[in-house]
Amino acid sequence: MKHTLARSATRALFNSAARHQHGGGACGSLFWRRMSTLPEVKDHQSEEKKSEVNRNDSSNNTVVPSYWGITRPKVRREDGTEWPWNCFSPWDSYRADVSIDVTKHHLPKTVTDKVAFRAVKFLRVLSDLYFKERYGCHAMMLETIAAVPGMVGGMLLHLKSLRKFQHSGGWIKALLEEAENERMHLMTMTELVKPSWHERLLVITAQGVFFNFFFVFYLLSPKAAHRFVGYLEEEAVISYTDHLNAIERGEVENVPAPAIAIDYWRLPKDATLKDVVTVIRADEAHHRDVNHFASDIHHQGKELKEAPAPVGYH
Amino acid sequence: MKHTLARSATRALFNSAARHQHGGGACGSLFWRRMSTLPEVKDHQSEEKKSEVNRNDSSNNTVVPSYWGITRPKVRREDGTEWPWNCFSPWDSYRADVSIDVTKHHLPKTVTDKVAFRAVKFLRVLSDLYFKERYGCHAMMLETIAAVPGMVGGMLLHLKSLRKFQHSGGWIKALLEEAENERMHLMTMTELVKPSWHERLLVITAQGVFFNFFFVFYLLSPKAAHRFVGYLEEEAVISYTDHLNAIERGEVENVPAPAIAIDYWRLPKDATLKDVVTVIRADEAHHRDVNHFASDIHHQGKELKEAPAPVGYH
Repeated sequence: MKHTLARSATRALFNSAARHQHGGGACGSLFWRRMSTLPEVKDHQSEEKKSEVNRNDSSNNTVVPSYWGITRPKVRREDGTEWPWNCFSPWDSYRADVSIDVTKHHLPKTVTDKVAFRAVKFLRVLSDLYFKERYGCHAMMLETIAAVPGMVGGMLLHLKSLRKFQHSGGWIKALLEEAENERMHLMTMTELVKPSWHERLLVITAQGVFFNFFFVFYLLSPKAAHRFVGYLEEEAVISYTDHLNAIERGEVENVPAPAIAIDYWRLPKDATLKDVVTVIRADEAHHRDVNHFASDIHHQGKELKEAPAPVGYH
Repeated sequence: MKHTLARSATRALFNSAARHQHGGGACGSLFWRRMSTLPEVKDHQSEEKKSEVNRNDSSNNTVVPSYWGITRPKVRREDGTEWPWNCFSPWDSYRADVSIDVTKHHLPKTVTDKVAFRAVKFLRVLSDLYFKERYGCHAMMLETIAAVPGMVGGMLLHLKSLRKFQHSGGWIKALLEEAENERMHLMTMTELVKPSWHERLLVITAQGVFFNFFFVFYLLSPKAAHRFVGYLEEEAVISYTDHLNAIERGEVENVPAPAIAIDYWRLPKDATLKDVVTVIRADEAHHRDVNHFASDIHHQGKELKEAPAPVGYH
């Protein structure tokens, strides 16, 4: 669970070599360097020459990192080392709530529920036949699929909000957060398991099929789509529980946690694969709850925006 | 410009009636209430009965807001009043950098640049013919279009990151932030200008066409797509400058700023339309820079992930 106050304290602690300047006055420690502050500049060709004070990267290629006068602020950890990640910042990291109930299951009641449940159970059979006990590979490849629904749902809600001139209730953000969280699961598992060429081919094919399927599915019935995702997440929780059990039995080596996982979930420096799988499972349990909740809102005949979304809790 | 340290301080200041509890220990002031903490719960039917201690909303409809045990934390301002918005939190608000150079223009150099520039200038002619001096209507309706490219680009980069098992350089987040920022422009303008039925129909049609067009465009040439958006944003800056001039000439009434704008951009309580248009214009100038930057990276033959994205600065 994202600890919002810890996030704010973390932001304050992380500093860089320069100050943040903005129209409201200088404060704090993040800095945007501007290559030109001249008013009435009609074109930027003179800026181009200034900003083309190039630097060479490690391959001796010329890189113009701030072509339009924007540089990313340097962010440092408390110990002074540079924050190495571009896709998330210290304030995006959090501690997962591992006390979440991982045994919860939504009992299918309506026809929609039952169809969604059976579809997921069928896919489970196929998935078990293919992956067997290759837990790492299973996790890595299914995260490439798991990160799709949140993005598709978030995008479709975004488009709806635009064309209907209406608020979203925070659901766009909630679903996009879920998609990004699943993508971070993938980035983590990729540090541990490398896909073979045929697994990459399978992922590309599966993405093409699933993205288009889920896009149409969500357009036709967001109620069924959220229920389907809720059941998918239940299966993800089960898979990660199996993975944990295999680690505990010694069948899977309990390797050190990758650096990205330690930073993203604020794990201790000596964290292991077991800690990583535990927090990923907690995330999946939360996605399960959010999606079943979203489906329940629809089942009550309401739109998502009528119930505030649980944002800020992965 | 988003003031990241102010964001962190703001997070610390905003508090609610309850505490944030999570597996790492209690800290801070946001609270997630869980409807059940029983382990080994095989189904949630007993929870259903507990959580179906319903409440009636103002229309006397039964609402089950926490069906799956998730409730959104209460967030309050410093003065104790409840934060009224679901789609953004206090820590998502920021002060725009109104010192940004609004006169910058990217001189078209390559064939890609020239085609993109001429296409945008052609669309400008059509837009001016339709809207004339209806500045508010112009802003509102074009924001429904402006919020599409960031979402499409962000989504396609997300899918690419998944199927290639590669990092994004922060660009997914940068583009999705742009899309959300444009959507907030729309939510703001909608408080001031109400669309007629035929304007709504036009928006629905335009979204259908533009979404599909831009989706294919970005797949075929992200370089050209970003340049096109950069030029669109330059036109947005020009339009908002015209709007400001009209306000200053007294042709457009300088009404009080809507509450959502005061909260989102941290404007003073007596802010007016002029302040709102000023900060929106600053945002558009930043989007202009980000998109031209992205196109420039492609023009150097590189992928976006090779240059860190300017995240956290709307």
